[in-house]
Amino acid sequence: MNVAECAQLALLLEVAGTPKPGNVDRCREYPDLRFEHFLAGAVGARPGLEAAADPDGPCVGESFERAVAGMSQQSGGNTQFGALLLVVPLARAAAAGGLSPSGASAVAEATTVDDAAAFYRAFDHVDVSVAEPPEGWGPLDVRQGSDAVAELRDRGLSLYDVMAASAGRDGVAREWAGGFERSFRAAELIEDGDGPVTDRAADTYLELLAEEPDTFVAIQHGEAAARSVVGRARSALDGDLDPDALADDLVEEGVNPGTTADLTAAGLFVALARGTVSV
Amino acid sequence: MNVAECAQLALLLEVAGTPKPGNVDRCREYPDLRFEHFLAGAVGARPGLEAAADPDGPCVGESFERAVAGMSQQSGGNTQFGALLLVVPLARAAAAGGLSPSGASAVAEATTVDDAAAFYRAFDHVDVSVAEPPEGWGPLDVRQGSDAVAELRDRGLSLYDVMAASAGRDGVAREWAGGFERSFRAAELIEDGDGPVTDRAADTYLELLAEEPDTFVAIQHGEAAARSVVGRARSALDGDLDPDALADDLVEEGVNPGTTADLTAAGLFVALARGTVSV
Repeated sequence: MNVAECAQLALLLEVAGTPKPGNVDRCREYPDLRFEHFLAGAVGARPGLEAAADPDGPCVGESFERAVAGMSQQSGGNTQFGALLLVVPLARAAAAGGLSPSGASAVAEATTVDDAAAFYRAFDHVDVSVAEPPEGWGPLDVRQGSDAVAELRDRGLSLYDVMAASAGRDGVAREWAGGFERSFRAAELIEDGDGPVTDRAADTYLELLAEEPDTFVAIQHGEAAARSVVGRARSALDGDLDPDALADDLVEEGVNPGTTADLTAAGLFVALARGTVSV
Repeated sequence: MNVAECAQLALLLEVAGTPKPGNVDRCREYPDLRFEHFLAGAVGARPGLEAAADPDGPCVGESFERAVAGMSQQSGGNTQFGALLLVVPLARAAAAGGLSPSGASAVAEATTVDDAAAFYRAFDHVDVSVAEPPEGWGPLDVRQGSDAVAELRDRGLSLYDVMAASAGRDGVAREWAGGFERSFRAAELIEDGDGPVTDRAADTYLELLAEEPDTFVAIQHGEAAARSVVGRARSALDGDLDPDALADDLVEEGVNPGTTADLTAAGLFVALARGTVSV
């Protein structure tokens, strides 16, 4: 499989893995955000993923915007925004021959204000829950979408700059600023796992969930809620709590560790593109 | 969504629908043929589907061969051969502006010996369970793959001719020879259904299964077994048998009504491409 195919398959395998407590998976859905929305999101994202996988293609930001525009051709809303924000730069790194923390960092650091502008335009396509902007960044709140682009150009900020500014509260931005550390860790967990790839994805998700508070949960429900999920995931890993019961409970509570799912998708992409895991 | 995207999504929605007694679905797998193999099959098929959706692209047979070659980049074996054999000509009809029984028939009837040769080459990519060849067709047994192409060219047979000769025992070939009648019927059932598209797909599958013996079951287990499945599906539709129990039983028995799944995928494609159903 080529890089774009690995990227699309990573999105599909991520949502197929079950149980993935708090997220839509093969066995659990929210009434308005269903498994089929993720399938359609992955289908629509493909042209953007192909752009990302072309080293001579449009810039990373534009590839991402294209992927998000395609992903949004379904009625469930935001399905894979965060996953794409990780997989797109990783796909570009893979296409450029550097699918490693340093190769991915090089892609991130090479972004310009054009990448940042395209990133902001991506918010025009779909509603995304995000953290409040960092201090002094009010005019650059991503929820303004393309309306913030003029200010962005005035300040001359690259997409890497934008991500670095949010790294404190957003787990996806933290990947951009930190060599995609947890994405590569997820890949290693998947590679070291047992059984079918979807099972490894679910196991890896739970492991990541037990390691660090999910920033998407923190944004939606607060830091305390995010820390509580870490503890419950740890209990599930230790055998003190049935992961399926935890999955049912979190869906019931509307607690959705989406960033951990994004990291799982990124790890799946890395493992598939390295060829260390296959279906 | 464009035609190729509708085609890829149809493959994914088909396998996601559950319960789909006897077939791999979101909740049921065979040990060596799992849900993830179907996801990867749909990912790999995309370039062939894009070729099919391009009215100026390669011929229908070549588009099909390309889709099958891509589909086969996974270790589960034949996942969507029959579905692609229906979706590819329907996609070409849609792209040419004629997604109707007559438009699809026109695509089928316009095929040449080149389409037939590519169809035979497709069997080089994957093992497919097929019926014994019709009388006088021994040298053209599809299981010979590309080795049969010289004989095919000697006889000057089009892909439509090949399909028409097998229409008696193969439900997919029967579609080619008969205006894709059950594919369009499946689309109507999906359009008239209730709830999420994956649920409609599962309901439609059961309805089709109760209507006519599945030819893939007949090939693998005999006519009596195929007729028995019709009766059991009818009982499930009538509420006398739990569809989930029937699904578990058929998987246990290794009875796989694959042609009915193919028809469901074709119906999904038609409904999505007509825009009468969306995700």
